[in-house]
Amino acid sequence: MPVVQPRGLFITVEGGEGVGKSTNIAYLRDYLESHGVDLTVTREPGGTRLGEQLRELLVAQRAEAMDPMAELLIIFAARAQHLSEVIEPALAAGRWVLCDRFTDATYAYQSGGRGLDAARVRRLEQLVQGDLRPDFTLLFDAPVELGMARARERGELDRFEREEVAFFERVRGTYLRLARESSGRFRLIDAGQPLEAVREQLHSVSRELLDCWGVRH
Amino acid sequence: MPVVQPRGLFITVEGGEGVGKSTNIAYLRDYLESHGVDLTVTREPGGTRLGEQLRELLVAQRAEAMDPMAELLIIFAARAQHLSEVIEPALAAGRWVLCDRFTDATYAYQSGGRGLDAARVRRLEQLVQGDLRPDFTLLFDAPVELGMARARERGELDRFEREEVAFFERVRGTYLRLARESSGRFRLIDAGQPLEAVREQLHSVSRELLDCWGVRH
Ligand SMILES: Nc1ncnc2c1ncn2[C@@H]1O[C@H](COP(=O)(O)OP(=O)(O)OP(=O)(O)O)[C@@H](O)[C@H]1O
Ligand SMILES: Nc1ncnc2c1ncn2[C@@H]1O[C@H](COP(=O)(O)OP(=O)(O)OP(=O)(O)O)[C@@H](O)[C@H]1O
Ligand SMILES: [Mg+2]
Ligand SMILES: [Mg+2]
Repeated sequence: MPVVQPRGLFITVEGGEGVGKSTNIAYLRDYLESHGVDLTVTREPGGTRLGEQLRELLVAQRAEAMDPMAELLIIFAARAQHLSEVIEPALAAGRWVLCDRFTDATYAYQSGGRGLDAARVRRLEQLVQGDLRPDFTLLFDAPVELGMARARERGELDRFEREEVAFFERVRGTYLRLARESSGRFRLIDAGQPLEAVREQLHSVSRELLDCWGVRH
Repeated sequence: MPVVQPRGLFITVEGGEGVGKSTNIAYLRDYLESHGVDLTVTREPGGTRLGEQLRELLVAQRAEAMDPMAELLIIFAARAQHLSEVIEPALAAGRWVLCDRFTDATYAYQSGGRGLDAARVRRLEQLVQGDLRPDFTLLFDAPVELGMARARERGELDRFEREEVAFFERVRGTYLRLARESSGRFRLIDAGQPLEAVREQLHSVSRELLDCWGVRH
């Protein structure tokens, strides 16, 4: 009897600058792998050679202004490559994918932050992803000043990190609105707490993900 | 009395590899400038610093396949930047723009050549350009073998120039179909002829463009 490979879970991690996404993705990876999950960890923009080259163009400081529509299209170009080269093959092979930022970040930064019409993001999302959406999205939420202070400690700021506080407030507000609108897929993590308390929250979400996977087997 | 600046003419030059676009754009530039036209000459993909960086990513040989949708989005990202940084400001200031390849090339190469659904190109054209279309498009047409032989003489081939003959036949066929469908804007140049004869054809088109401009003044 042929075994039908169940599709892997597609989990994205979202949130503003310095809220602890990278730190906790490393922790989550260890936790899930220790429970036998076959995991692909990746990030956006990037995740492929082309995607990382596009990411460099996005974050570089430049003398001339980058057109907001050009920025949006570069992000979705990296995403199209990421989906076809990494994400889709992994999910189809039954691997879970844990991705540091995805399309919610595009709504939060390019639409919420930069003020680009959300309908343009939606049209590109449809064109590039079709019906593909994350199964779960962990939103790390913390006051803007807290995340910025953490990120500043790491040194040199890129083109996004140089934006003013109001920009990041709009990003945060957009993320929280998305979480309310798609509450089935979002899990809100209070990332303003000490690392120990954040990990407690991650354990409870992880158990839910593992249960979900158990059910699928 | 305020003088209303008439908008410049937007002229694109299209055609397959090695048909003589660059050679004749240089000639056309001299001819038009000698008749008092204030001209911006540019090219796609490229025409801006960001656009040229994106062009490098497009033409580079790479080990992994580039997703066709990623390619299409990179081309339109370069175009969005080109429009906002170069083309729109020039036209608004009354300058003519002479552009080596534009969106017809996207239909010809990405849809005709690579087989990507033309509806996707159309959706991006709408998203990035709104109602903007070239006022005139000079299509340089020649048998595929002839253009390839001319291009080969220039040396090292890029990712596009390495495609097989059937690819370029589809490109040529798509260009000719576009010219039939938008016959008001297209001017067909028989580029298989010797350079002298091609220039005769350019003179006749140039006079039409200058007349058109004279009428607008
Ligand atoms: N809950 C926390 N309490 C205190 N410090 C934290 C906490 N979470 C993360 N940090 C620290 O904050 C800094 C930023 O964390 P991290 O790089 O994980 O954030 P990030 O969300 O990935 O940032 P970016 O958006 O820039 O990628 C790191 O030095 C990290 O050790
Ligand atoms: N009508 C012609 N007869 C003979 N040779 C020509 C003619 N037109 C152009 N050439 C030569 O063919 C070669 C290719 O021309 P050119 O670079 O102008 O083509 P192109 O369309 O710009 O090519 P590409 O698509 O690669 O940019 C050049 O060496 C040029 O001198
Ligand atoms: Mg990080
Ligand atoms: Mg040329």
